[in-house]
Amino acid sequence: MTTAGARARERLSALSGDDRARAALSRLCEPDDVGLGQLVDRLGAEQVLAQIGSGELPSGRLAAYQARLTGLDPDAELERAAGFGARLVTPGSEEWPVMLDDLGPRRPLALWVTGSGDLAHLGGRAVAVVGARACTAYGEHVAAELAAGLGERGWTVVSGAAFGIDAAAHRGALAVDGGTVAVLACGADVVYPSAHARLLSAVRGAGVVVSELPPGCRPTKTRFLGRNRVIAALGRGTVVVEAALRSGAMNTAGHAADLSREVMAVPGPVTSPMSAGCHELVRGAAASLVTDAADVLDLVGDMGVDAGPLRRGEVRPHDGLDDLTMRVLDALPVRQRAGPASIARVAGLDAASVLRALAVLSVRGLADNAAGAWRRAPATGAKR
Amino acid sequence: MTTAGARARERLSALSGDDRARAALSRLCEPDDVGLGQLVDRLGAEQVLAQIGSGELPSGRLAAYQARLTGLDPDAELERAAGFGARLVTPGSEEWPVMLDDLGPRRPLALWVTGSGDLAHLGGRAVAVVGARACTAYGEHVAAELAAGLGERGWTVVSGAAFGIDAAAHRGALAVDGGTVAVLACGADVVYPSAHARLLSAVRGAGVVVSELPPGCRPTKTRFLGRNRVIAALGRGTVVVEAALRSGAMNTAGHAADLSREVMAVPGPVTSPMSAGCHELVRGAAASLVTDAADVLDLVGDMGVDAGPLRRGEVRPHDGLDDLTMRVLDALPVRQRAGPASIARVAGLDAASVLRALAVLSVRGLADNAAGAWRRAPATGAKR
Repeated sequence: MTTAGARARERLSALSGDDRARAALSRLCEPDDVGLGQLVDRLGAEQVLAQIGSGELPSGRLAAYQARLTGLDPDAELERAAGFGARLVTPGSEEWPVMLDDLGPRRPLALWVTGSGDLAHLGGRAVAVVGARACTAYGEHVAAELAAGLGERGWTVVSGAAFGIDAAAHRGALAVDGGTVAVLACGADVVYPSAHARLLSAVRGAGVVVSELPPGCRPTKTRFLGRNRVIAALGRGTVVVEAALRSGAMNTAGHAADLSREVMAVPGPVTSPMSAGCHELVRGAAASLVTDAADVLDLVGDMGVDAGPLRRGEVRPHDGLDDLTMRVLDALPVRQRAGPASIARVAGLDAASVLRALAVLSVRGLADNAAGAWRRAPATGAKR
Repeated sequence: MTTAGARARERLSALSGDDRARAALSRLCEPDDVGLGQLVDRLGAEQVLAQIGSGELPSGRLAAYQARLTGLDPDAELERAAGFGARLVTPGSEEWPVMLDDLGPRRPLALWVTGSGDLAHLGGRAVAVVGARACTAYGEHVAAELAAGLGERGWTVVSGAAFGIDAAAHRGALAVDGGTVAVLACGADVVYPSAHARLLSAVRGAGVVVSELPPGCRPTKTRFLGRNRVIAALGRGTVVVEAALRSGAMNTAGHAADLSREVMAVPGPVTSPMSAGCHELVRGAAASLVTDAADVLDLVGDMGVDAGPLRRGEVRPHDGLDDLTMRVLDALPVRQRAGPASIARVAGLDAASVLRALAVLSVRGLADNAAGAWRRAPATGAKR
């Protein structure tokens, strides 16, 4: 057994009865079981587990929970988790990310966590970056850039370790040694998709891989949908990088909105179906448009600390020129020089105004004077 | 002289004293001269013209106006205009587009109009489509598609006949025999840019080319900026297709906002500086995001007539399945069939619920039954 395994085993042996009951319950129910969550909040996990055993639980799903009691062995489960270095994190424990409590009775009963990061620490300043599996090269590029930008500013990137945008987001964060959290829709020990073995291992090295599903569980459609609420809850906001009109990323955005988290979407070509979901979110005012990490932190960052710079175009020599001076600049010939009187006629101004304006333009390097005859200084052509 | 020329000459000879005075004044002042506009509104154009001649006009720019009196000859001007088939359209005349009156004292003194279209008619259901000269192939494509979509729905496309987005917008409208209006920053007889001789001629064939500048005037920076307010005023809204952060298109958008017209922007790749202006407009809530003509008409169209369809993703067989049925679908094996009891255990549900769900899934063609053993019907894999 590895050192990490030994440490994990030690941690597991220190678990309370409530912790063990939560581990057992997460085997009996599916994620996002509101009814069970409410019962656990009211009666406590140990009591709920006991009432399932005794058939006393006041729940329409009692039979379903009981159907899974066969072979349930929390201690063997915890042993097995220790074997791959997983720790159990439950509400109230030190590593529990308090942001999940915003889910109310829909918060996970427990999380199985692997990786060197500290979930509570990582969760404080975190943004979810999600999107299509079948993304475009553009989306992949933007997701990685965005995640790297967040990582560089000390923010953690939360995503789902799926193909496409998710993977690009994790990789972007890892590339700048940023923190990252992968929330799985299967057991934290299951490598899914199997091509992401190395990615998941890299995420564990810099951050954490978490799941509310017990070890060994396979992903299903409802588990993916349930998982999305955890991704949304762990971030201060959710950025959708690319998404078709109906997609898991749109579902995650919906969870973020339900949680009153910031929903953000990255625009893309209107010709790309992979950006249609993003555009629809912005069009319907369900999401704010963001183009980079600075935009994201403008919305979710701490005032004064993370505020982005004001976007400005290039500064040009004729910036701040008043209306009359601009008209004189417009009236200046480009090649053949002209005297002030001629310029005044072209500009439709009196001579005194023209002389004042020429002085200003000369100082700015925009007008060129030779023996009282003027023309434009080179390279200041009229632009729209 | 052509027939059009003869008709134009006839029209011009029917002009009132006010019309002639407006024509003369537009030679003496620059476009968007608010002070002069106020005086004309108060005293009338003829009176203002007379007071410039007599030196009595209460304006700080009197000397400037007077400087241009030399060689002023409205009749020769009108003669010249008739020579290239232009008509003078003034406030109150039949072809005057009333939308320009929203500009108040900043409305043009008069418009010189060429082309077979009727400006008043074209202006009623019109949208301004503007953007960068140095646009990308993407922007050009989107502008043409958008304009064609507007044209197909009977809307007129207003733009500035510049290189890039403007030209693509006019061409898109022309391609579907839609109406289009080119507003120039030079005399309506001046071909600018000179490469657009054929484009301008095509616009005249299907719509109109207009300018508030008298014949022969050259474009200048301030004239471009002044011209943009006319483009914005002629449309019910302004769509910016591509624009750098500082650009004429952003200026036009500003005019549209000042006029309480709808401002719209087309998104594009965040990696493209040519979309940065559009994204900034949307980010700052100065513009609504639009992706096509339907989106535009959602915002500026007439309720019920132009409303676009609701955007939806593809309809899928498992749409509308309730939570429990979805869980049974998830629990169905793909290859090896399983009995209801086994499915119930995997799904975490009681046997009765599973049987009900299997019936629903079977009817929907999602579950496949052989001798009481079930599996998924082909091609309904678990998706996020």
